[in-house]
Amino acid sequence: MEIAVIGVGHTEFGELWTQSLLDLIARAQLEALADAGLEPGQIDEIFVANMCAPQLLGQAHLGALAADVLGINSPAFTIEAACASGSFAVRSGIRAILSGESTVVMVTGAEKLMDASIEQVATSFMSASTRDVEHSKGATFPSLFALVARLYLEKYKITREQYAQVSIKNHHHGKQNPLAHFQRDITLEDFANAPMVADPLTLLDCSPISDGAACIILSTVKFAKSLGRPYVSIIACEAAVDCVNIADRASLIDLKATTLAADKAFARANLKHSDIDVLEVHDAFSPAELMVLESLGFFKPGQAAGATMDGVTTTTGSLPVNLSGGLKAKGHPVGATGIAQIVELTKQLRGQAFGRQLKDPRYALAHNMGGIGTSVVVTILAQLS
Amino acid sequence: MEIAVIGVGHTEFGELWTQSLLDLIARAQLEALADAGLEPGQIDEIFVANMCAPQLLGQAHLGALAADVLGINSPAFTIEAACASGSFAVRSGIRAILSGESTVVMVTGAEKLMDASIEQVATSFMSASTRDVEHSKGATFPSLFALVARLYLEKYKITREQYAQVSIKNHHHGKQNPLAHFQRDITLEDFANAPMVADPLTLLDCSPISDGAACIILSTVKFAKSLGRPYVSIIACEAAVDCVNIADRASLIDLKATTLAADKAFARANLKHSDIDVLEVHDAFSPAELMVLESLGFFKPGQAAGATMDGVTTTTGSLPVNLSGGLKAKGHPVGATGIAQIVELTKQLRGQAFGRQLKDPRYALAHNMGGIGTSVVVTILAQLS
Repeated sequence: MEIAVIGVGHTEFGELWTQSLLDLIARAQLEALADAGLEPGQIDEIFVANMCAPQLLGQAHLGALAADVLGINSPAFTIEAACASGSFAVRSGIRAILSGESTVVMVTGAEKLMDASIEQVATSFMSASTRDVEHSKGATFPSLFALVARLYLEKYKITREQYAQVSIKNHHHGKQNPLAHFQRDITLEDFANAPMVADPLTLLDCSPISDGAACIILSTVKFAKSLGRPYVSIIACEAAVDCVNIADRASLIDLKATTLAADKAFARANLKHSDIDVLEVHDAFSPAELMVLESLGFFKPGQAAGATMDGVTTTTGSLPVNLSGGLKAKGHPVGATGIAQIVELTKQLRGQAFGRQLKDPRYALAHNMGGIGTSVVVTILAQLS
Repeated sequence: MEIAVIGVGHTEFGELWTQSLLDLIARAQLEALADAGLEPGQIDEIFVANMCAPQLLGQAHLGALAADVLGINSPAFTIEAACASGSFAVRSGIRAILSGESTVVMVTGAEKLMDASIEQVATSFMSASTRDVEHSKGATFPSLFALVARLYLEKYKITREQYAQVSIKNHHHGKQNPLAHFQRDITLEDFANAPMVADPLTLLDCSPISDGAACIILSTVKFAKSLGRPYVSIIACEAAVDCVNIADRASLIDLKATTLAADKAFARANLKHSDIDVLEVHDAFSPAELMVLESLGFFKPGQAAGATMDGVTTTTGSLPVNLSGGLKAKGHPVGATGIAQIVELTKQLRGQAFGRQLKDPRYALAHNMGGIGTSVVVTILAQLS
């Protein structure tokens, strides 16, 4: 399988008080079209990722609206899989091309959270969990993940200093990303003063609530070559799901869906872990990055924390992770997140990541998950030209 | 293109007070598996259609939940395109198989509306329109469609008696469908006494608010043949969208997306209108069936009403439409509707439609639309064995 990413668009992420959801969708889509050198009429289909607009804005039917802002009649619909919505939309776009039925597709993700209260946003996020079992007992997402994180941290004797380093690193990376929600460093001293959200997670362990949109345009390699512009390739995009209610799982700390999706993706791409030069992974909470890297197979269980302390996952380390700033510093506008990961890795593979650019990366991996590791997509990109 | 429908499931539609959304999803899925003679572990992916659960039940992430009730880890996500959600899910399932990446996929649609108030349901439905322009001015879906219907009825001088005949016919068909929300006749006298909802639409011109679920299992023809069971084929599934805000359209009464999708579907299937033996179309409001039949190209503009009065669209007519009872009598659990159409036509083509069975139908067409004709999918099925 080889699908070309021929255009990318990405608004700033953050508290975007003066822009509506449709403003953000339009901006990301127009930027991606300009990047690809295409006109709206060349888009065969649009796949839109969003989680919260129906609940928070009373606005569903975003597929048709995303086509509407471009003035086209191409098929379009909305995809939702909690925080993994954007990645399932990418997967759907890939399938449309592989099916032979479309040549150029647009995948757009957007979220507008600032127009609602924090209570409404927290309630909306909990709709990704089980309403009857978990939400009805008063659980919030940080509280559910805190249960998982505590078990994990205690089992592997991971210290506060160690998992705080995930957020510290990602904030440091975010300083090099002009589109990131936070572009400043945080310190261990900040952690000491940070309010507790759900023990062991403080405010600085949690990704922020952000507005934003991202868009990619996909096509066949043949069409990409005909454009005579740089493109990168997606060579695997695999998915799996796990029980939604975490109490139903055999293990709380093995991210089963992550491992299943990663195994399928590496098999599809015919690559080894050592081939991957750069990663974007789902760090909604700082211990999540450690758990995800282990479940993906990059470290043995309990080993990611030490590697993070050693700088392995920084810009200058052997396995750079979340150079965009990750969800923690780049921000987490839910529907946009999975698509933003592909935008970031496309820029890296094109050599356009500015202050965070690596030297000649060839293979990149994106991991995104919705719920407590419930719905997972692993995508592998390559610079093959 | 040829994709096989190898299993179907369909709960009763109606006011299902004692069943939850997940109960309905599980029942439809298990019935489809039994119909196909498959085990859950044989399902490569699930595509779930739903519109209102996030807003009305606080439950998103239905893809993972639908996999969860089967105890499988296969990729799954939710698809939303207002009332066309189910049809876009069918289209996504088809693409997964055409891509060569999956062999057996499940497409499930479900809606649970009775657990919310009628005001909440009406508000949720309006999220399919434009929040900023239409909903914020107080429009409801019947009021928006009433604007369109009045223009259409006046232009072609269609009488009350004529468009009432759509509902009368569909209720008569529904009497033969044991899964229909309404299984009783209505009369012109009932129309005279029906409360006005939005002039010219009375209560009996509007499809009901229903709970229900439907499920189909799709596969390659090769796999279908290996099962040694009856199957039918999908030979086209095409889509288009129109402006969401109806005030932006060049014409209010030309259902542009319907015409675009139909033209593509007939071209893809390489069929003429006269080849089609039976149709299921989106009759959310009784004039809609007339407008849709004309926009699909089965009648010239303004001619469908006379044909309906002449009995052309009944079980014994030359173009039977909505033998299931249509949205009006079968019911309209939004996410399930597009999939239920495919279930109905599969039963017809298999010769299993009992009291409403036609003699040896060969080609069938399903039309579904979300919004005021905004998001449209036209699917053509065939009995080729």
